[in-house]
Amino acid sequence: MKNLPSAEDNLIARFFKPLATHPGAFGLADDAAVFAPPPGHEIVLKTDAVIAGVHFLPDDPPDTVARKASRANLSDLAGKGAQPAGFLLSIALPKETDEAWLARFCAGLASDALAYGCPLFGGDTDRTPGLLAITILAFGTVPAGRMVQRAGATPGDVVAVSGSIGDAALGLKLRRDPALAARWSLSDEDRDFLLARYRIPEPRVALAPVLRECASAAMDISDGLAGDLAKLCRVSNVTASVEVAKVPLSPGARRALAADPALREPVLTGGDDYEILFTVPAARWKACAKAAAEAGVVVAAIGTIEAGDAAPVLIGDDGQAVTFARLSYSHF
Amino acid sequence: MKNLPSAEDNLIARFFKPLATHPGAFGLADDAAVFAPPPGHEIVLKTDAVIAGVHFLPDDPPDTVARKASRANLSDLAGKGAQPAGFLLSIALPKETDEAWLARFCAGLASDALAYGCPLFGGDTDRTPGLLAITILAFGTVPAGRMVQRAGATPGDVVAVSGSIGDAALGLKLRRDPALAARWSLSDEDRDFLLARYRIPEPRVALAPVLRECASAAMDISDGLAGDLAKLCRVSNVTASVEVAKVPLSPGARRALAADPALREPVLTGGDDYEILFTVPAARWKACAKAAAEAGVVVAAIGTIEAGDAAPVLIGDDGQAVTFARLSYSHF
Repeated sequence: MKNLPSAEDNLIARFFKPLATHPGAFGLADDAAVFAPPPGHEIVLKTDAVIAGVHFLPDDPPDTVARKASRANLSDLAGKGAQPAGFLLSIALPKETDEAWLARFCAGLASDALAYGCPLFGGDTDRTPGLLAITILAFGTVPAGRMVQRAGATPGDVVAVSGSIGDAALGLKLRRDPALAARWSLSDEDRDFLLARYRIPEPRVALAPVLRECASAAMDISDGLAGDLAKLCRVSNVTASVEVAKVPLSPGARRALAADPALREPVLTGGDDYEILFTVPAARWKACAKAAAEAGVVVAAIGTIEAGDAAPVLIGDDGQAVTFARLSYSHF
Repeated sequence: MKNLPSAEDNLIARFFKPLATHPGAFGLADDAAVFAPPPGHEIVLKTDAVIAGVHFLPDDPPDTVARKASRANLSDLAGKGAQPAGFLLSIALPKETDEAWLARFCAGLASDALAYGCPLFGGDTDRTPGLLAITILAFGTVPAGRMVQRAGATPGDVVAVSGSIGDAALGLKLRRDPALAARWSLSDEDRDFLLARYRIPEPRVALAPVLRECASAAMDISDGLAGDLAKLCRVSNVTASVEVAKVPLSPGARRALAADPALREPVLTGGDDYEILFTVPAARWKACAKAAAEAGVVVAAIGTIEAGDAAPVLIGDDGQAVTFARLSYSHF
């Protein structure tokens, strides 16, 4: 009798092995993977899961589901100043998830693995009677002792963000109600841009070395700017003052806000930005912004770290503090 | 307004932070963790998920669910010759999973983190409308280049296993049908032993350094001895001959098999053993068995690696090859 591989082994060989390009992955034919950080470096580890109906919509294109799951983790690594090195994938597949879905999912994973130099090192594939769920463990490397922490912001530091804020929150609204595009007077380009920002975030991997050089604290924004700033301030034992007018907006978000000023709340508190929130000693801000621009990432100063343990204050155009029904997305 | 932590932050601080004893976990107050292997070592990475109703029963005690999930990963590390270093946890909680469940679950995790020197480094907590699911990423360390691989078995090598085989498969049957204990003429001790072997496997962490010294190939047995031996042979490009009479059985399993010889199949093909299957050059076998005994782990030689690409053969007491309806547990 031939020693034939199991159906599970065949599935792994067909769909996942092409992503396992690092020798430490043993072509996914072993039980575990091996990785050594470069001399003088340590490993940064992050895990994040997405569940159908919770973090993505069941009819989202499979390649964008894969890329969003992968990029949510890459975004965290970037916020810590880490260079991506690899990932592990644990996936629970309902019976109705067919091979065509899996092929498109893996194509999305493969393009990101290549684009970010972050190959697959291993994983676990299960059938579930429940919901499709994808757990990614991404790891990267930093020079020893140089991971950029959440704690570390000091009074006087500049509060800064990368890219533009709120696009994904507006994209999700558009995804759920396409008629909003007309109500918000969006061009087709605006609409497509906001939808794409929800579906496929842009992890700011290029910003990692800049953050290591100049940031006193950093984190990626995944649960809304207002709430994530509150988290950064809490562990840094400081507070902050932010001018809402300085928060960078894309042209589409700007147009939507002009049509409906109430969108200010989802823009500032909605999830899925995957931009970087960071603080920089004031004296280093100019050099930092220049280095970021040279790395191809636009950054903007939006406020200042202050002494105190109060919640950070967001100041509106009228000079008054903005208040929100809820500060950020929370599962609990 | 005070900068109060979110409900999610409070839940993490209350239940999970006590397990995060390594400084690289930053008390779970950061977005990622950092770890450096000792000089001259590399990191071994493994992820494994368990889903309610698939890998454990929804009414299993929460502390045993935690310990089984943790130990399935520790068992993989042991099979690779790795010393446990830490783990990350991604958990999807249905609404009905309350804090009492979580407290008991975390107590189980905590006792294993302490027992195996494997603290929590980070994770992800989500609410799900689906099933309770637990994904663990465990990592360990090995001297560089010394991870014990699945590939490496050579004709003439001894095929060996740790502990006893089939207990968990019988324990699961007892869990589902308690009346079997009487039919199998089990003592209360036998029954409790088999049930415990299903609920809480014993990862052979102490065997890791022995495997590094003497094993040509190794893996943990999680999908049944017969199927996992076939996998090891396949990637090693060899086959094997095993004498079923030499497969070590616990007293309870021996009694059950005497009462019902048809149980030979679940014993040899059922999942959840979490023992180590390994191969050793014949000349080193005696020294290896002695070193294992000194490390507190009983090991047994059960067969021989042979040249060829046929499926491994298991020889019964009658000298005939045993055949099975299915070789091992497969999700696909």
